[in-house]
Amino acid sequence: MIKIAVDGMGGDFAPEPIVKGTLAALEKFDNIEITIFGDQEKMGPFLKKHDRLTVVHTPDYLEMGEKDPIKQYRTNKELSMFKALKALKDKEVDAVVSAGPTQALVVGGHFIVRRMPLMKRVAIAPIIPSYDKRGRILLDSGANVDLRPEHLRDFAVYASVVAKTVLKRENPTVALLNIGTEEGKGRELDVETFKLLKADPEINFYGNLEPKEIFTTEADVLLSDGFTANMVMKAMEGTAKGLGMVLKREIKSSFISKIGALLMKKSLKNFKRSLDASEIGGALLMGLDGVVIKAHGSSNDFAFFNGIRQAKEMVEADVINKVSEALEKKEVEEK
Amino acid sequence: MIKIAVDGMGGDFAPEPIVKGTLAALEKFDNIEITIFGDQEKMGPFLKKHDRLTVVHTPDYLEMGEKDPIKQYRTNKELSMFKALKALKDKEVDAVVSAGPTQALVVGGHFIVRRMPLMKRVAIAPIIPSYDKRGRILLDSGANVDLRPEHLRDFAVYASVVAKTVLKRENPTVALLNIGTEEGKGRELDVETFKLLKADPEINFYGNLEPKEIFTTEADVLLSDGFTANMVMKAMEGTAKGLGMVLKREIKSSFISKIGALLMKKSLKNFKRSLDASEIGGALLMGLDGVVIKAHGSSNDFAFFNGIRQAKEMVEADVINKVSEALEKKEVEEK
Repeated sequence: MIKIAVDGMGGDFAPEPIVKGTLAALEKFDNIEITIFGDQEKMGPFLKKHDRLTVVHTPDYLEMGEKDPIKQYRTNKELSMFKALKALKDKEVDAVVSAGPTQALVVGGHFIVRRMPLMKRVAIAPIIPSYDKRGRILLDSGANVDLRPEHLRDFAVYASVVAKTVLKRENPTVALLNIGTEEGKGRELDVETFKLLKADPEINFYGNLEPKEIFTTEADVLLSDGFTANMVMKAMEGTAKGLGMVLKREIKSSFISKIGALLMKKSLKNFKRSLDASEIGGALLMGLDGVVIKAHGSSNDFAFFNGIRQAKEMVEADVINKVSEALEKKEVEEK
Repeated sequence: MIKIAVDGMGGDFAPEPIVKGTLAALEKFDNIEITIFGDQEKMGPFLKKHDRLTVVHTPDYLEMGEKDPIKQYRTNKELSMFKALKALKDKEVDAVVSAGPTQALVVGGHFIVRRMPLMKRVAIAPIIPSYDKRGRILLDSGANVDLRPEHLRDFAVYASVVAKTVLKRENPTVALLNIGTEEGKGRELDVETFKLLKADPEINFYGNLEPKEIFTTEADVLLSDGFTANMVMKAMEGTAKGLGMVLKREIKSSFISKIGALLMKKSLKNFKRSLDASEIGGALLMGLDGVVIKAHGSSNDFAFFNGIRQAKEMVEADVINKVSEALEKKEVEEK
């Protein structure tokens, strides 16, 4: 039985979609048990009894707009998110899923769950949409503004394990996001990381990848530092949102277009869905000594359900141990 | 009379769209004279006599795939692009327009035209599409991987002058691209640049802007270093291209969608056009001691025509002198 802790109060619309997504996951997967931490009174209207669901009444929780997660952590360790992480630390559960503020989850993860012994940094790794609908792992999407080449190499090892075991890619490739495809392009960080990835026998290195191929590339893992990958991710998001608005404006501009759009209704819905990362799951916090999934802040039931599914798959695939083994092997070789 | 030098052989499809765009510009604007540098034999089939057009036979030119522009410059200064730049240096013309390789134009610009005395770096500044169709200036889009805050501040001064005089924005705002909106977000470069821009009386500072607002923001100028802004630009390009492909795939997926798309033909065409930067013009090389416009490598007639229009407007607005005055004033104040 896989045990998952859910932060019932994280997310813009919590607790409704969190509770509903949790119940849907329990319905769908009969090999999971869930402990949900949250305000019993607020969750009450949406909760149903389930023999694999435990509710831990936790009246305190983080506000979504919270700007200073370190202070929050110091002030009150009884917040729903931190209690879920504590359960993971204490091995009461195998994974945590939260739609709460990313930085708080990163801070809480560091202080409570702690890093894997051989990982020096923790990355945020969302699965982003792709033309072939299979998704791509993009990291570090925002946890570390300053990274060294070795940190990026360790992330590449971790992400390769996830791509193989969870996303079921055979021999997954890792691309370095860069301003040009030739070796030697980019900043010193990129030049050095290129060399390290190219020389590593455990990594199937794709080479440099320009973000103009980001939606159509064959590469499975897209790698850069936490500033750059975050900017790229947000530029994708902004462009997709902007183009959706333009399309709507153009459709509304004439009667005949509106008729056309009605006939295209199913296609336009599929178009919209293909950009929707919540179809695939949340972001993985890579580097913690346990499985922690950050569901999107604006998660609906289905998005949160997918975050739980992803956590379950990570535990089933024994990702943490596989990554530990890969990193240990690497350390032995380098000595 | 405004004099413009055109590199007749630059661009993926040169010389045809270059010559045709040049003739269209001469037709449209009666206050310009154009000197076109290129292979007379190759340009011949598309050339027409025009009393404000001079053809300078220049059989040598850069290949678009050229990887080592510095070597090219050292080897042969008689290439069409470099002869056009030389004409600008010698004050025979007021501006240069080329669709040739960007890095060659940057290198040629540095060595031949030289920098404005008070500009320490040269930025690439394209005008990118926006929801309101007016475009935004994005810089530095790829000339400098390493920049200091003062360089970014100087670019902001330059871009503000262009936004005001050429794009006709009243009191244009400059946004710093960043991973969060609060002051203090980002790398050291971003934190220091934020302070400098905020304190500058000549710059109407918008604050930090996350790229998820890139298509819809009110800000007129979007600023970052040459690595980041290039990545953001390419992520926009990749997302727009990818989404276009998804839309096509969805339309083709059913008969009824195809009918719908036929009815929406005009809307879909407008949708596509709204993403097309060639509607607005080329990229400006900011910091050279003269107006140099880099038209898109895949320019068609209309895109190249727009590059010429943009060069003409830059000269009409006396941008180089206005920027020099602003930077001189700043230098005096800082002493």
